[in-house]
Amino acid sequence: MTWRVCEEGFDSSRITSNGNKFMTGNGYMGYRGTMEEYTKNELVACNLPGVYDRVGNKWREPVNAPNGLFTSLAVEGKSIGVLQEKPVCHRQMLDIREGLHWRNTVWDTAYGRVTVEAERFASLSAYHMLCLKYTVRLEKSCEITIKTGIDGDVWDINGPHLEGFSCEQAGDVIRVQSITQELMVPIVVAEACKRSFIAEETIEKQDKGIFRIIKWCSEPDTAYTFYKYVSVYTGKDNVTDMVEAAGEAVLKTAEAGYIRASQDHAACWKTRWEDADVVIEGDEQDQLALRYSIYQLEIIAPFHAQDQSIPARGLSGQTYKGAIFWDTELFMLPFFLHTHPDAAKSLIRYRIKSLNGARRKAACYGYRGAFYAWESQENGDDACSDYNVTDVFTGRPVRTYFKDKQVHISAAIAYAIWEFYRYTGDMSILSEGGAEVILECARFYHSYAYFKEDKDRYEILDVIGPDEYHERVNNNAYTNRMVHHTLEAALQVLQLLKEGNPEVYAELLEKLDYSGEIANIARMKEKLYVIQPDEKTLVIEQFDGYHRLEDCSLAEVKNRLLDPREYWGGGHGVASDTRIIKQADVVLMLYLFRDTYHSEVLKANWTYYEPRTEHGSSLSPCIYALLSCETGNAEWAYPFFKKSASIDLTGESKQFAGTIYIGGTHPAANGGAWMSAILGFAGLCVRDGRVSVTPNLPQKWSRLAFKVNVRGEKYSIELTHDRQNIVKLG
Amino acid sequence: MTWRVCEEGFDSSRITSNGNKFMTGNGYMGYRGTMEEYTKNELVACNLPGVYDRVGNKWREPVNAPNGLFTSLAVEGKSIGVLQEKPVCHRQMLDIREGLHWRNTVWDTAYGRVTVEAERFASLSAYHMLCLKYTVRLEKSCEITIKTGIDGDVWDINGPHLEGFSCEQAGDVIRVQSITQELMVPIVVAEACKRSFIAEETIEKQDKGIFRIIKWCSEPDTAYTFYKYVSVYTGKDNVTDMVEAAGEAVLKTAEAGYIRASQDHAACWKTRWEDADVVIEGDEQDQLALRYSIYQLEIIAPFHAQDQSIPARGLSGQTYKGAIFWDTELFMLPFFLHTHPDAAKSLIRYRIKSLNGARRKAACYGYRGAFYAWESQENGDDACSDYNVTDVFTGRPVRTYFKDKQVHISAAIAYAIWEFYRYTGDMSILSEGGAEVILECARFYHSYAYFKEDKDRYEILDVIGPDEYHERVNNNAYTNRMVHHTLEAALQVLQLLKEGNPEVYAELLEKLDYSGEIANIARMKEKLYVIQPDEKTLVIEQFDGYHRLEDCSLAEVKNRLLDPREYWGGGHGVASDTRIIKQADVVLMLYLFRDTYHSEVLKANWTYYEPRTEHGSSLSPCIYALLSCETGNAEWAYPFFKKSASIDLTGESKQFAGTIYIGGTHPAANGGAWMSAILGFAGLCVRDGRVSVTPNLPQKWSRLAFKVNVRGEKYSIELTHDRQNIVKLG
Repeated sequence: MTWRVCEEGFDSSRITSNGNKFMTGNGYMGYRGTMEEYTKNELVACNLPGVYDRVGNKWREPVNAPNGLFTSLAVEGKSIGVLQEKPVCHRQMLDIREGLHWRNTVWDTAYGRVTVEAERFASLSAYHMLCLKYTVRLEKSCEITIKTGIDGDVWDINGPHLEGFSCEQAGDVIRVQSITQELMVPIVVAEACKRSFIAEETIEKQDKGIFRIIKWCSEPDTAYTFYKYVSVYTGKDNVTDMVEAAGEAVLKTAEAGYIRASQDHAACWKTRWEDADVVIEGDEQDQLALRYSIYQLEIIAPFHAQDQSIPARGLSGQTYKGAIFWDTELFMLPFFLHTHPDAAKSLIRYRIKSLNGARRKAACYGYRGAFYAWESQENGDDACSDYNVTDVFTGRPVRTYFKDKQVHISAAIAYAIWEFYRYTGDMSILSEGGAEVILECARFYHSYAYFKEDKDRYEILDVIGPDEYHERVNNNAYTNRMVHHTLEAALQVLQLLKEGNPEVYAELLEKLDYSGEIANIARMKEKLYVIQPDEKTLVIEQFDGYHRLEDCSLAEVKNRLLDPREYWGGGHGVASDTRIIKQADVVLMLYLFRDTYHSEVLKANWTYYEPRTEHGSSLSPCIYALLSCETGNAEWAYPFFKKSASIDLTGESKQFAGTIYIGGTHPAANGGAWMSAILGFAGLCVRDGRVSVTPNLPQKWSRLAFKVNVRGEKYSIELTHDRQNIVKLG
Repeated sequence: MTWRVCEEGFDSSRITSNGNKFMTGNGYMGYRGTMEEYTKNELVACNLPGVYDRVGNKWREPVNAPNGLFTSLAVEGKSIGVLQEKPVCHRQMLDIREGLHWRNTVWDTAYGRVTVEAERFASLSAYHMLCLKYTVRLEKSCEITIKTGIDGDVWDINGPHLEGFSCEQAGDVIRVQSITQELMVPIVVAEACKRSFIAEETIEKQDKGIFRIIKWCSEPDTAYTFYKYVSVYTGKDNVTDMVEAAGEAVLKTAEAGYIRASQDHAACWKTRWEDADVVIEGDEQDQLALRYSIYQLEIIAPFHAQDQSIPARGLSGQTYKGAIFWDTELFMLPFFLHTHPDAAKSLIRYRIKSLNGARRKAACYGYRGAFYAWESQENGDDACSDYNVTDVFTGRPVRTYFKDKQVHISAAIAYAIWEFYRYTGDMSILSEGGAEVILECARFYHSYAYFKEDKDRYEILDVIGPDEYHERVNNNAYTNRMVHHTLEAALQVLQLLKEGNPEVYAELLEKLDYSGEIANIARMKEKLYVIQPDEKTLVIEQFDGYHRLEDCSLAEVKNRLLDPREYWGGGHGVASDTRIIKQADVVLMLYLFRDTYHSEVLKANWTYYEPRTEHGSSLSPCIYALLSCETGNAEWAYPFFKKSASIDLTGESKQFAGTIYIGGTHPAANGGAWMSAILGFAGLCVRDGRVSVTPNLPQKWSRLAFKVNVRGEKYSIELTHDRQNIVKLG
């Protein structure tokens, strides 16, 4: 059972979290794990990444498409659904091997036992398609009414985003057209419904929806099955006639039939798993959790696109504005790089595409170069607000500095491009824009930095590091080291181009007017303040003055909360004046640059910072797992791996920051779980196309097996406690 | 009646404010304007500036001496006092010409009319002495009991500071000895009491006090008068035997008698007023308010000391920890410089004396040079807390940055020393330490500053300007300009010494290891970012990004308060994210450097900033008055003069910052009132020993006359709307 996620029984308090847990998707769209009879009140969403909309001055966020899978049931005119009637039996299941969502619900009614079974998927072989197989069976003979169609009255956090609805029937197809408010992007959802039993069917049009009303008298204990084929198109798709395309897609799929569609879909999943599956023997829970993490990454991977990235909450809804954070580069990219380099390339290209947005942001703050958005939307403009938190005591918005002071974002992007290049050896990513991004990030840092004559060094002032609870600090160890890396990468990229592609080099220098900049970058790299371990304790101070803050326990800080929803950071937060940090910060830096530090330094800092870390971000535990593996301590790493891998299975994560809802899936933690297993426990290291492992399996695990794709070659790797096997596949 | 401040009737709600309003003092001590029968509950205080004490980890503050003037009355065993019985007639009066406090209270009692009249003063001719004349008169014959002596149970905000009490009688003298807790400074208060009527006198000793119980049967309608001579000595006084000195002082004064003591005192006041009085004709209120302001400055002036300064709340108690702020240098020094240069010198020498404290503070933050204390106590160590405000919603202390980020304090001190030198032409202040202070302040700024290569300039980052509502800003126009002035002064001082006193120059350079520093200072002076007026609007932006803040009205910001005691600044304050400022900031800078700006710039900035200024500090209105005079607009200046001059008469000032009591007198506003009149309306300007005026009298004023002391020469200046008369006195 390590390919299935299942819940028994119906619990209305789990509607929201199960919406995340039972997600399906194909990168083009994400479909929440809700019941067919749900509406916006239960947070049904067919989320469309990359299609953003803003209403008034509310937060800009991705659009949810009209729900083409809506289906409700009535027996003898009485609605039957999990919300209306408590079922006697209810199971919700996700088959992660084949990307199928399945539910089976049984009610005891005045008309006897009523059973609904439904299976659906977001097609991995046809990205615009959602398919549903719906079966109803009654113990007795009754009049059954199915209402099924397209529900355009969708869940929005800062909507309504869709307007100008047009709901029509055209032959066998019904469809809903609408447009977004801000940019007037058209959204079309079409549906065809196929059944083999005879029923009376009428069409019901509403302002924001169109439905089929299907009525018949059922035979006792007879299964009635129908199939829905739904397509979603938006104005962002490269098609001439969206309405025609949407109609053709559903008719074509319907004609081939559900079995064919699900076979094609399953075949794609098979390929995905061949590249990405990780086998863990010794603990079934771990096996399932890690596979489930990989599943979550697969359903949001932008295989369908050339230059699309992944939002921080995946495709699970509109939280975090559907924006791309550094999560993608540092926590998701490694998985894709090692298993699906093409998808990785799309993530990188998204940042190349949005370089001008980063330039605009830098200019807006008076800097040169590229200052990437903290919350990046389609054009790289920053969706992040200056006020991200609400004070629970006064209800006032609190000025936060994520947008303007988390300058390490640009370095994360330069790091990712450089890693992509190092991993793939693919110079083309540099010449098609990657080099430009790195150079512009380096230029930004030179423009941001200050020189301290007194200490003969450059410093990076007034920033927020990964630990967001401490705002506007100077010389954050993580940030400074990442900036140093950016400068180094810029110089190396210049050298590479100069030697390998002098034309591109010359063009780029001229385009960017960069000749004069090179000396700046080189000088700054030499003299940038990189915070060193303390000689005695080996601890690296997180930022200037961190060691002067109150050193109290996490429990003590928690104990000071007057309201559980209080924001811990900012001007007045309970953690702000203490050494309690939100997430891995120095430890993240040490992990990223682990090759340049002595193991004793890694240990000392892990031991110092772990008890002071709230792990209030889902990005934190995996990094502690990884660094612990690096010091050879798999057992310390293990609980952090488990926490990271199971976050979306348990649903035990922060749902609120202040009063703002931040629920959804956690692809960065999913990626972190993969990293912990493969880069941590297996100790996989790929350098210059060469593969090595330094395994360190948790005691419980008897075997770990996975594949890795290195520069077009696939390797199968199998590890036990006393054996390593690396096989290059034919 | 322009020499008297008077209140009729008793109002218990005014006990605290009248304690400030009716202050007496002589620089050595301040005695609050309380009734003789009051105790610590009514905030009686004999405040001793320069004697500080800390209890546990509470705020360190100046000590209040045991109250040697305590006197209570009982008639037929029943206590009679304003607190016990509502008087039928009550007058409290301050004679500011002679520095006398006077009260007259009449009660209608069962024993007929009871009258108490008392006059007292803190001697200006004998700084350790307090003298009291106390008269009681009854309509009928009754048994009168007077309890008078030394009450050691004193008012403390963060006390108790005194311990180890010893209360003794020695011949005619009673005395209380005690020591402070922290530094064990002994405090001795002695008292002698003289009367010419016969009464039974016994001594009552208590743990913290010693009292005379004087009983007699009064004749009807007969006045019984006694005199109290009280001396105060501390371990900080340069005497061998404090107890002996204290006893001798009271006996000597008693022997000469009250008339002689008050004549000597009055003679000193006469001299003071000869130097400092300002005559305003045309408005009696203005005349009284300005005289009263001068009076407040006179009673706290450190004439008795060589190197003592003046706390921000004068000698009115322990608020603001009795600490010296920049108030002294920028708002009080001008008065003393122009009227009492010797007292001015003491203020300057205090800063020279505390240079090592400033060095310690700089070093503690990782800087070189001298970073003066924001709240300076006897050794220049900073009494300022990191938490100066309490959040009214959570009761939590709020991290403020006055101490660590208000770096303009050092520049204010350098400015004051330079002004002292320029005014007096007295090089000795430079060679006796003034030069060292200026050089060390300049060194501090070089060590604090950052160089921005991108813009080829030095910047001053992460500061608080005079407007404390905006914390941790970059390139505050005031601060940067003041830093520039410090650098300039340092270079000029070096030049002066090199030419005028090469030995001192050489010594200083060696002592401070300063030779290498000179180039730094010179370079920084050339390239320091001094914020210029906007080309179009002429407005100088208060700090980087100020113009991006919300531009809403003062009324709107006030309207957002949920609690009247809320702190407006800091991380979450109602003003923090708006352009509303606490006090003159750019306008103060423009006033100090008025000679270097075009009048249109002064006007544009006054007009821009005034509506955006809360005037939440008593330092603010006078600066708006001064700058307005500078642009020739006396009528705009006039209400700000009035506000500044009457602050301690009306008692209408902020009593709380958050939940912290900040009441007391406002010597900076008193100094500001004098500046507004003399440097503003009269337009007095003294440069290189030459005196000039550019008068601009308010319409209401028909004549303004005052004196000024320039390099030992006294000038009498008389101005009307059509005449100026400057006479050098013989």
